[in-house]
Amino acid sequence: MRRGVAGLNETLIGARGGRTRLETPALVLDADAFEANLQALTGMARAAGLGLRPHAKSHKCAAIAKRQMDAGALGIACAKTGELLALFEAGIQELMLTAPVVSRRKIDRLTEAAARGAEITVVVDHPTQIADYAASAREAGVRLAVLVECDVGQRRTGVAKPEAAVALARQIAEQDSLVFAGVQGYAGFVQHVFDHEARRAENRQAMGRLLAIVNALDEAGLPPAIVTGGGTGSHLLDLEDKVLTEVQAGSYVFMDEDYRRVDLHGSGADVFGTALFVVVTVIAHNLHGDAIVDAGTKSFAVDGPLPRAYLDGREIGTITFVGDEFGRLETAPGKPAPALGTRLECTVPHCDPTANLHDFLHVVRADRLEDIWPIEARGLSD
Amino acid sequence: MRRGVAGLNETLIGARGGRTRLETPALVLDADAFEANLQALTGMARAAGLGLRPHAKSHKCAAIAKRQMDAGALGIACAKTGELLALFEAGIQELMLTAPVVSRRKIDRLTEAAARGAEITVVVDHPTQIADYAASAREAGVRLAVLVECDVGQRRTGVAKPEAAVALARQIAEQDSLVFAGVQGYAGFVQHVFDHEARRAENRQAMGRLLAIVNALDEAGLPPAIVTGGGTGSHLLDLEDKVLTEVQAGSYVFMDEDYRRVDLHGSGADVFGTALFVVVTVIAHNLHGDAIVDAGTKSFAVDGPLPRAYLDGREIGTITFVGDEFGRLETAPGKPAPALGTRLECTVPHCDPTANLHDFLHVVRADRLEDIWPIEARGLSD
Repeated sequence: MRRGVAGLNETLIGARGGRTRLETPALVLDADAFEANLQALTGMARAAGLGLRPHAKSHKCAAIAKRQMDAGALGIACAKTGELLALFEAGIQELMLTAPVVSRRKIDRLTEAAARGAEITVVVDHPTQIADYAASAREAGVRLAVLVECDVGQRRTGVAKPEAAVALARQIAEQDSLVFAGVQGYAGFVQHVFDHEARRAENRQAMGRLLAIVNALDEAGLPPAIVTGGGTGSHLLDLEDKVLTEVQAGSYVFMDEDYRRVDLHGSGADVFGTALFVVVTVIAHNLHGDAIVDAGTKSFAVDGPLPRAYLDGREIGTITFVGDEFGRLETAPGKPAPALGTRLECTVPHCDPTANLHDFLHVVRADRLEDIWPIEARGLSD
Repeated sequence: MRRGVAGLNETLIGARGGRTRLETPALVLDADAFEANLQALTGMARAAGLGLRPHAKSHKCAAIAKRQMDAGALGIACAKTGELLALFEAGIQELMLTAPVVSRRKIDRLTEAAARGAEITVVVDHPTQIADYAASAREAGVRLAVLVECDVGQRRTGVAKPEAAVALARQIAEQDSLVFAGVQGYAGFVQHVFDHEARRAENRQAMGRLLAIVNALDEAGLPPAIVTGGGTGSHLLDLEDKVLTEVQAGSYVFMDEDYRRVDLHGSGADVFGTALFVVVTVIAHNLHGDAIVDAGTKSFAVDGPLPRAYLDGREIGTITFVGDEFGRLETAPGKPAPALGTRLECTVPHCDPTANLHDFLHVVRADRLEDIWPIEARGLSD
């Protein structure tokens, strides 16, 4: 029996009209839009001759990771140890951990998974991490692929100077239990720059920093096989710039109000369709006659523009949050509020932290609920 | 085996120094502060002759609800059906659902729980809800206690006019399977007014609206046995005003940066201590030498002032969020950043949605990890 609304909704799987009878609040994936997004990025990367390593931080869901692998992804990027291990337990083998880890116990969990068949790539930005990974891998009897984490302007993790990257790469290469596999340079600050030309300029600057590191490694006889980074916001630029060998896009599978503001291809057109929704129900009308719905800040992450609400496929307003469990539908003046019990499909402000609030993804196509997928790595920030 | 960091941390239960060796990010409850908060509000309510019906929306945790009941609470308030059912399955019997429900399937789950021994009180603000509850209770062979949900200025759910409340109360009383039990009037907008006198004035206005409804019900021969509402922000005022028969405080068990701004007793003193923390680890130093920690907006709800960070019990700075999984420690100028691997205990911006991000609560006292409690109702917004 699934938890929460998913437990009530599983009886609707396959039934005609199931999509319109969902108990709420329910996180919903539009299968057609999702599949189109998957194909769109796969096609672009293939045409540009670049690899894709989709980032699971957006979806945290093995069923989606599996479909990304089936579409030709090189592997799945994960934000945290817990996220990676959850996907491994759910059957994903090729996994990259994109954040440095300083806990030996967490590192041991990774090398234990590697001993059980996981193909794990990790990043480091400090000598102590190299020592810990080397010792743990040795004890587990595995060899781990290690990238040098580079700061291309994010000011979070990573080394910035080429000589520092070369020094770390050399230390990695000296360890029998480690393989120096390349570099990571994630320009997170570029992803959400709305204007395409401004974003292009910022990305070029960030990738220039990474290229200086790549060149220094080449000169030092440590050419990086993998140069990984990028995201949904920079994917087209990364395909142009060709500093990266692979792109870690995540949000493209879902899309959200935040990314809708970003002119991804410089044409103003939507490249990716919105595939992620929270279905809510009108549970009251307030004093002013406004519809109050049964979902608030515990069902939607709020770091982005307000959700748009759709009724029978027609956009009818936006949702303002009026509590952890309540939202208010704002419609155009004069429009009557939908009746009690009416279900609305709402876009989300920001997809990654919204998926993190839900245990299950309801997969819908046309008027049916096709399946319910667990979000295995939800809440695993360890 | 517990999920995520809790699975790693369970080996530390009872061990000396376990508190300082927690794998992170971990949600932590300071047992001493929690117990003092529990006793403080219990004592004040008892002295004022008012009941307490603590709201589980803050903690969502059966172990805390049980301790609230042991301290003399009348029952536990729940925001949603799923929250209520999770606490019932975990052994809590006296449960009040504080939001209207319009789904017959959810209502049937409530009456089924009532048939299995749950003592459930619900709220309604529309005749269709009364009809649904009555039919469902009849079919389940139970009698359900029902309150009229009143809008005292929150503009969310509830009826505002005394005559509307009387009409609903009469409809409830006419149903054999329902018992008219009273009214609810929650002044959520009052709770976070910082200044004590301003908050007192707003609460008096809200309680005046509720009193008009109570008087109308008395005159109609439908005296409300229960007049429920209030919260941590208004608790002292509710004890003064005596319109409510019971107070639904929630945050007092934990406290957070948001409530710390509210002068709860007009004295400027902290009445409740901070009992809720997220423990984080320094995983990197960025280009500027700032410490980067392993927790961001997936470990902290962000709707409140920034977390304060403590090292060995000493406040050393604040955490700025720099991503879903990362934070940056901001210290006073010239202070060196803590070393890699250093753990910091951080307060939370807003306790309710922060608890909702975590599966487990690590209970600490002095330098020990005493226990790990599941947050059973996390994520159950249905």
